[in-house]
Amino acid sequence: MNDIPNKPKNRGITAGPFPGSKKIFVEGTLPGVRVAMREITLTNPAGAQSADPEYNHPITVYDTSGPYSEDQPHIDISKGLPRLRQQWIEARSDTQLLADYTSDFTRASKADPALDQVRFSLKHRPRVAQSGKRVSQMHYARQGIITPEMEYVAIRENQQCQEMAKKSPALARRHQGQSFGAAIPEVITPEFVRDEIARGRAVLPANINHPELEPMIIGRNFLVKVNANIGNSAITSGIEEEVEKAVWACRHGADTVMDLSTGANIHETREWILRNSPVPIGTVPIYQALEKVGGKPEDLNWEIFKDTFIEQCEQGVDYFTLHAGVLLRFVPLSAKRVTGIVSRGGSMLAKWCLAHHQENFLYTHFTEICELLAAYDVGVSLGDGFRPGCIADANDECQLAELKILGELTKIAWQHDVQTFIEGPGHVPMQLIQENQELQLDWCHEAPFYTLGPLTTDIAPGYDHITSAIGAAQIGWYGTAMLCYVTPKEHLGLPNRDDVKEGVITYKLAAHAADLAKGHPAAQFRDNAMAQARFDFRWLDQFHLALDPEKALSFHDETLPNQGAKVAHFCSMCGPKFCSMKITQEVRDYAEEHGYGEGEAINQGMKAQSEAFSATGGELYNKK
Amino acid sequence: MNDIPNKPKNRGITAGPFPGSKKIFVEGTLPGVRVAMREITLTNPAGAQSADPEYNHPITVYDTSGPYSEDQPHIDISKGLPRLRQQWIEARSDTQLLADYTSDFTRASKADPALDQVRFSLKHRPRVAQSGKRVSQMHYARQGIITPEMEYVAIRENQQCQEMAKKSPALARRHQGQSFGAAIPEVITPEFVRDEIARGRAVLPANINHPELEPMIIGRNFLVKVNANIGNSAITSGIEEEVEKAVWACRHGADTVMDLSTGANIHETREWILRNSPVPIGTVPIYQALEKVGGKPEDLNWEIFKDTFIEQCEQGVDYFTLHAGVLLRFVPLSAKRVTGIVSRGGSMLAKWCLAHHQENFLYTHFTEICELLAAYDVGVSLGDGFRPGCIADANDECQLAELKILGELTKIAWQHDVQTFIEGPGHVPMQLIQENQELQLDWCHEAPFYTLGPLTTDIAPGYDHITSAIGAAQIGWYGTAMLCYVTPKEHLGLPNRDDVKEGVITYKLAAHAADLAKGHPAAQFRDNAMAQARFDFRWLDQFHLALDPEKALSFHDETLPNQGAKVAHFCSMCGPKFCSMKITQEVRDYAEEHGYGEGEAINQGMKAQSEAFSATGGELYNKK
Repeated sequence: MNDIPNKPKNRGITAGPFPGSKKIFVEGTLPGVRVAMREITLTNPAGAQSADPEYNHPITVYDTSGPYSEDQPHIDISKGLPRLRQQWIEARSDTQLLADYTSDFTRASKADPALDQVRFSLKHRPRVAQSGKRVSQMHYARQGIITPEMEYVAIRENQQCQEMAKKSPALARRHQGQSFGAAIPEVITPEFVRDEIARGRAVLPANINHPELEPMIIGRNFLVKVNANIGNSAITSGIEEEVEKAVWACRHGADTVMDLSTGANIHETREWILRNSPVPIGTVPIYQALEKVGGKPEDLNWEIFKDTFIEQCEQGVDYFTLHAGVLLRFVPLSAKRVTGIVSRGGSMLAKWCLAHHQENFLYTHFTEICELLAAYDVGVSLGDGFRPGCIADANDECQLAELKILGELTKIAWQHDVQTFIEGPGHVPMQLIQENQELQLDWCHEAPFYTLGPLTTDIAPGYDHITSAIGAAQIGWYGTAMLCYVTPKEHLGLPNRDDVKEGVITYKLAAHAADLAKGHPAAQFRDNAMAQARFDFRWLDQFHLALDPEKALSFHDETLPNQGAKVAHFCSMCGPKFCSMKITQEVRDYAEEHGYGEGEAINQGMKAQSEAFSATGGELYNKK
Repeated sequence: MNDIPNKPKNRGITAGPFPGSKKIFVEGTLPGVRVAMREITLTNPAGAQSADPEYNHPITVYDTSGPYSEDQPHIDISKGLPRLRQQWIEARSDTQLLADYTSDFTRASKADPALDQVRFSLKHRPRVAQSGKRVSQMHYARQGIITPEMEYVAIRENQQCQEMAKKSPALARRHQGQSFGAAIPEVITPEFVRDEIARGRAVLPANINHPELEPMIIGRNFLVKVNANIGNSAITSGIEEEVEKAVWACRHGADTVMDLSTGANIHETREWILRNSPVPIGTVPIYQALEKVGGKPEDLNWEIFKDTFIEQCEQGVDYFTLHAGVLLRFVPLSAKRVTGIVSRGGSMLAKWCLAHHQENFLYTHFTEICELLAAYDVGVSLGDGFRPGCIADANDECQLAELKILGELTKIAWQHDVQTFIEGPGHVPMQLIQENQELQLDWCHEAPFYTLGPLTTDIAPGYDHITSAIGAAQIGWYGTAMLCYVTPKEHLGLPNRDDVKEGVITYKLAAHAADLAKGHPAAQFRDNAMAQARFDFRWLDQFHLALDPEKALSFHDETLPNQGAKVAHFCSMCGPKFCSMKITQEVRDYAEEHGYGEGEAINQGMKAQSEAFSATGGELYNKK
């Protein structure tokens, strides 16, 4: 297929445009706001059954892939991405550049010649809020300020659907949604974005030290987002592979990426990822802190954690998972479970609590943590250290006790203008999913919910991207703002590149199913365009509109490899004779020709039609 | 892995036991009732953290694979499977053997020397009800008769879960379900099966000419079932491949198989499939009728259809999809849709109706059809010829108009003691799924619902097994009795062997998620066993308990290929240091040792525990 380009490589990084698509930029009103989107050009080849130009306009879709998918991408990962937000941050005049890094660990790393080989040669100094200032998007929102970041996400969320609806009204039809009390507007305005952030119902993760990111938003009244986890481990490695994994995940639709590295050179790996990532990066800082104490949770302490925390704030991590709700008094509750504590961070802190018989230091230092977070605009993702690890443990006392604490911590974070969201399970059978969402909204004051799946059964290892997509689609529908993907390797091993893609696409479709069900105004357009392309046998358009164009094409090739089959007027499942779509077009032509199609014609006598039919001499199914 | 056997082959047919499992037979009270099940032997290897014998008993699971998965299977597909039900059918003394086939087409086929090469050399004569008799399971049920078939399914549905619960009570814990008004009993008795069939709430497909099948039941108050479609087409072929596809689908969990062949030698292919199938076989007879008129729907007529219908009744097909609700007056409604009519059978009949301006002959001859069905005990699956083919068309006037007619036809079928179920969509966004189930239950008088997916978005070709599993799990939860699988090739091409397996396993997990959510008493046991095996690091047991043991093992091998890793006390995702399961066990040991674990201990002072901790000299995490 000559319109599905080979992927040009830059030091092993996947780049190049999507098939049948180009990158467009939609200008905002604030300086420098140019929102990247992907425009899919429809082919409507000669001979398509429906040559109506209404179906021929390009379709704009949300694009998480960053500059890598430009037509002629100029990618050099040793230099990093353009610093899109730098002028916005500087213009606010509330930050300062530091002469050196605050973290002892960072300074030691920078000075270590053994790390020269793996170090990203950073040209920029770290930035922090001026003394006494808060620099979070929540802070600005509460001051009534619409930042360029807010305008960016407003334009981005709309996906030009109003403009598309004007050009192709038939593709704008949509079902009424059921949003369970969400408040999704017809048009996302910058003011709406500001208001949602101000009241804590949405998070716009944007560390002032990660100016490369393209702003996005996480909230119940916006498109459902997907996070992909990557990270090296004791077993694997390779900085370039990790950068590629992040780029690869974004290419296929990851809205944020969590770097969960636990192996060698965590600091340096993260630096490479951040400088080359167009999406917000999250981490679980206690993983790195644990590495620094030789892997023994009981040896952790606040000082080591704090240094790690600042190290990552100054690198540009956009949100941290903090298991601050793992309280000493809840730990014994976990002993009653089938699978106990399955969150890594949760189990470390539980062990620390028991070993010291002190309260979790993330909990006792939470106010200090919030002050730091507000000085860099790092969001906090309050981790569910007690999330259930199996169906039997779902919605138990231990899980819900922690959730209540996360609600209390949310209020504290908001007092410091810290953008906050809440992590959720895990393993939950379908009939117990809605309770999770309802309690979270209630107890956590509508802060965005961010769940892992949930997996709806335990018995399908190897297919847990699917067992969890079933739960993810549901909880996304009920109101969860972001879904953390699960790959086919869950419970079995470390995901490779194919697994990452399979996980991301699976979660994109689950998130999209949720958007459709909620009635998001921008959701159904793409489905309608796909349905119309199917009906018209516009095969290339079907591939290009698909979440995974390459797989769609390769599957079609397996049955009908000829180039000619890509414009054939029958589908590859039925063959030319049995194709129901083909027969339907004939029925439709007939009905239109003979005045059917609107209610009044339906009940009229069939006899007249029969005569009309005879008059056509058996050529009933002539094309118009 | 020496306990995962190589698959012995018989003429290309997959056979041999499942890893870690053996076939067992549970005896009933009626003569010849021996219900096949699969028993998974748990290993609990030396060194497992939980050596509690309560977790060590074998787990019995539902088994659709037939004799192929016996320890030493004696398979010869040229002879067919043992005729399990023959004595039961004969003992009822209400049928007669025919001297020759009733169908002209069958007689011609048998006499055609050109077909000698592909013909199954049948040793048995066809059977039909004695004049004036009805031989359907519904007929017997309404007479108050419990047939051996009914006892078989009662034992089968229970899966020995009462016996397992006695041996391993901790694994019998389960959540309360939400069944939306279903009436699932704690124990399935033969009398309950009879009553459900008598009132039409369940179907036990069992043509008297398919004595090889192992009885199963389709109904809202039973385990959710999965159908797999197979069939050759104009493009592919090979009888042996089709038999293998059926055996392969059953091996992985298909409860019924529909043979949708449209290519060469349809009659002969079906014969081979039927004689070697341990599950009920369904067809869409109009596909073959269309072949007989050269592929022109307008040339179809009742006589050709009826001959095809009887041909298939006498071969042993267990249920027919009949699109008898595709009425002439509804056809124009389909012209308003984005994708019109996507059901193949529906589009053929719509074309026929329009061409002749007569009512659908399946509708006008429905009473005669029912009389024939009752004479062979063929179930009718009332097809949804107007099912929506895209999100935009979901729940529209055309679809719902047909559904109401299907309810009327159900009443007629029941007057003839014909077992009846109702086909459903299709493509439906999540917020509109429940309405489908509710209307179906209401309008079709609780006859079982049998849906294709539904797919919850249109934009993920290549992943439609997943977009549809999301909808299938939901509608199964709401009350759908059987889910027709969708493979990754949907909309793109013909499924190969791998696609069939991927589709079946995906639907098994969706059906199981639905069983869990409904609160089916036999459902959660296997999840609990898996969760316990995870917590104990019993890796082999995890593989053996999985829906797809081979994939689970191969994925684990990718990260940790050593044999030793299969008994390692850490998981392959975190590695030895970070394993949360390992830390949890330490927490649990500690909690148990120190008297935690039940409510009263939770609020006690932590100080005393801290002192106790110190007394252990830092060796907190000693094993008990």
